[in-house]
Amino acid sequence: MKKTSRRKFMKQTAITGLVAFSPLQLFSQSQVSKSMRSNVKTKGFAGKDKHGKLQRWNFERRQVGDNDILIDIKYSGICHSDIHTIRGHWGPQQYPQVPGHEIAGIVAAVGKNVTKFKVGDKAGVGCMVNSCMQCESCKKGEEHHCETTGMTGTYGSPEKSSPTGITQGGYASNIVVTEHFAIKIPVAMDLKFAAPLLCAGITTYSPLMRAGIKKGDKIGVVGIGGLGHLAIKLAVSKGADVYAFTTSESKRSDILSFGAKEVIVVKGADDLKPWFGKLDFMISTVPYAYDMSSYISCVKPYRYFTQVGQPVNGELVINNFNMIFNRVNFNGSLIGGISETQEVMDYCAKNEIYPQIQIIKAQEINDAWDKVIGKQARYRYVIDAATI
Amino acid sequence: MKKTSRRKFMKQTAITGLVAFSPLQLFSQSQVSKSMRSNVKTKGFAGKDKHGKLQRWNFERRQVGDNDILIDIKYSGICHSDIHTIRGHWGPQQYPQVPGHEIAGIVAAVGKNVTKFKVGDKAGVGCMVNSCMQCESCKKGEEHHCETTGMTGTYGSPEKSSPTGITQGGYASNIVVTEHFAIKIPVAMDLKFAAPLLCAGITTYSPLMRAGIKKGDKIGVVGIGGLGHLAIKLAVSKGADVYAFTTSESKRSDILSFGAKEVIVVKGADDLKPWFGKLDFMISTVPYAYDMSSYISCVKPYRYFTQVGQPVNGELVINNFNMIFNRVNFNGSLIGGISETQEVMDYCAKNEIYPQIQIIKAQEINDAWDKVIGKQARYRYVIDAATI
Repeated sequence: MKKTSRRKFMKQTAITGLVAFSPLQLFSQSQVSKSMRSNVKTKGFAGKDKHGKLQRWNFERRQVGDNDILIDIKYSGICHSDIHTIRGHWGPQQYPQVPGHEIAGIVAAVGKNVTKFKVGDKAGVGCMVNSCMQCESCKKGEEHHCETTGMTGTYGSPEKSSPTGITQGGYASNIVVTEHFAIKIPVAMDLKFAAPLLCAGITTYSPLMRAGIKKGDKIGVVGIGGLGHLAIKLAVSKGADVYAFTTSESKRSDILSFGAKEVIVVKGADDLKPWFGKLDFMISTVPYAYDMSSYISCVKPYRYFTQVGQPVNGELVINNFNMIFNRVNFNGSLIGGISETQEVMDYCAKNEIYPQIQIIKAQEINDAWDKVIGKQARYRYVIDAATI
Repeated sequence: MKKTSRRKFMKQTAITGLVAFSPLQLFSQSQVSKSMRSNVKTKGFAGKDKHGKLQRWNFERRQVGDNDILIDIKYSGICHSDIHTIRGHWGPQQYPQVPGHEIAGIVAAVGKNVTKFKVGDKAGVGCMVNSCMQCESCKKGEEHHCETTGMTGTYGSPEKSSPTGITQGGYASNIVVTEHFAIKIPVAMDLKFAAPLLCAGITTYSPLMRAGIKKGDKIGVVGIGGLGHLAIKLAVSKGADVYAFTTSESKRSDILSFGAKEVIVVKGADDLKPWFGKLDFMISTVPYAYDMSSYISCVKPYRYFTQVGQPVNGELVINNFNMIFNRVNFNGSLIGGISETQEVMDYCAKNEIYPQIQIIKAQEINDAWDKVIGKQARYRYVIDAATI
């Protein structure tokens, strides 16, 4: 739809405050209109408690507000964070809770104030769906570091507008989100590839960019799963020499195909000693407690090691004997702002950087979770939302 | 002694390879000469095992080599590292072992190649007594980061030239050390004040300088003991506003007298919340595991938190949930090179920055150790070596 014709269409429908049309939509026009005046019915897969398996669950989203869009979800990635959250590894949760923060779909309806999207556009949602938008951090595009309310996570965050009292994520048929927190997915980007970029992509892209990596830099990536394999592809695309550290020998050939210069299969801390002080930057995606300090020592003095994987309770042991000798700076990194998430989406589309995914049906979610924990994912499970 | 006359003096004595004279020395001239042709008899206080109290112990130093000086020790500071080391908190040890790496005294003899010192000079020894002197780190004055042999610690390090097989520290009547690893103590600096600068001083000065602190910066110091109180004085001398974090209310007035702008008595993590994101730099001297992550969060995003205190086994828990939100860089710092140690000594002499000390007799060492552990030191115990 061209801009002029879109304006005309919006004007025509302004009387109701509703703008909804898409040849791709599952909803009929009357259904969409109804959804915008009332809560939106949604099918999802939810955790009912911290122990059990995810189950089908029908729930409601808030009605589509003036600044909201309704996305008909096509694909939803499975992130290890989903497992940690639902299983209470990061703190107590409210249930039922639908996980999923790698969401890609088609815009099925837009509120009257929406300008960034039109019905039929490809759109995505990552790890957050709201923030105060008033503080310094929000104003400079770091909504994930909102200084007042804090960001509202895509699932499990208290949210008054949500009929369930908390936000509900992307293992679902649709989602209602403020347009600001939706990402435009380029036409050329396949939705199934777009989904993992919305968490795994931005979470690795942001610290790589902050590290200022450049051609020929030696970059270490620890943990080659959903995040790690994208970290490799992104760093390689920037001209870096990437050294991939994994505990899985079976991933070696895949990792080389992603462009890594070398694969280091780590069976014990001794395997890391030859690398001490060799790397310009290192990023770790490992989502469990591990012998982190030996990996940190692989970085050159005064350079940086960024831990993006979040272990149970967030707790990691750091050995300060190593730290006083290796002189490495350790830090964490949390996803990225909306503008940077848009940046990585556009960058990957332009440079044809795609995650290596396995499409699964909704009924395979629980099995996929077990495989993620068992390091069997190759490298991102993506749910076909049509099967939910 | 001027350079020319000193050369002449050296030439006169070159025939024996010995240069030894001091009106201050305890040794007679013949005793010194003897000490340079044979091992040097020394009285010390040693740990005999990891559990018991330190005991008097007579042992021998190596003979004074061509590049060595013999220092008649006058004062020796008590550092928490002494306790950790002897008690095996940082790994198994060889005993008997004499701790002490804050050593100040008078040069009693010099080897024939020595140019930096003459007999009668004030001299000090800090935490290291040797390194390869060939590698890049050594060449640029970072002997503590020697890349080949590693630095030789002042006590407890394997050392062929030492009659006991390991280096022996400063709770002793004298020490033999390669001149390069001895620090010149300015005439104006009282030896009893010089001693603590050789570990507590350089260990806090080096990271403060690396942080590039400047006038008006908000600097946090965690743990106000031997190191912490010097960190305050040093940062204040650079014009910083210093915020001191202690668990001891009883230290408040002392801390204000050191120049701190504010004292925060921390009873629990909640006491730290008002400080989140407020400080330009923070240094922690706490030598035990503690709730480190809450302190780290007091630093502004993208700034630095340096942990110089070394806990049991070096292990500290870091909470990566805090780290991904606070965006602080965590690092460690190990003493400083010889040239930087000389720098802090000269800086403190020039600016009249002196540690607050309590002189004790040798027989009070064990009691002092208990008080250091019990946070009762105010703020550095210094042994009067004449009582050993």
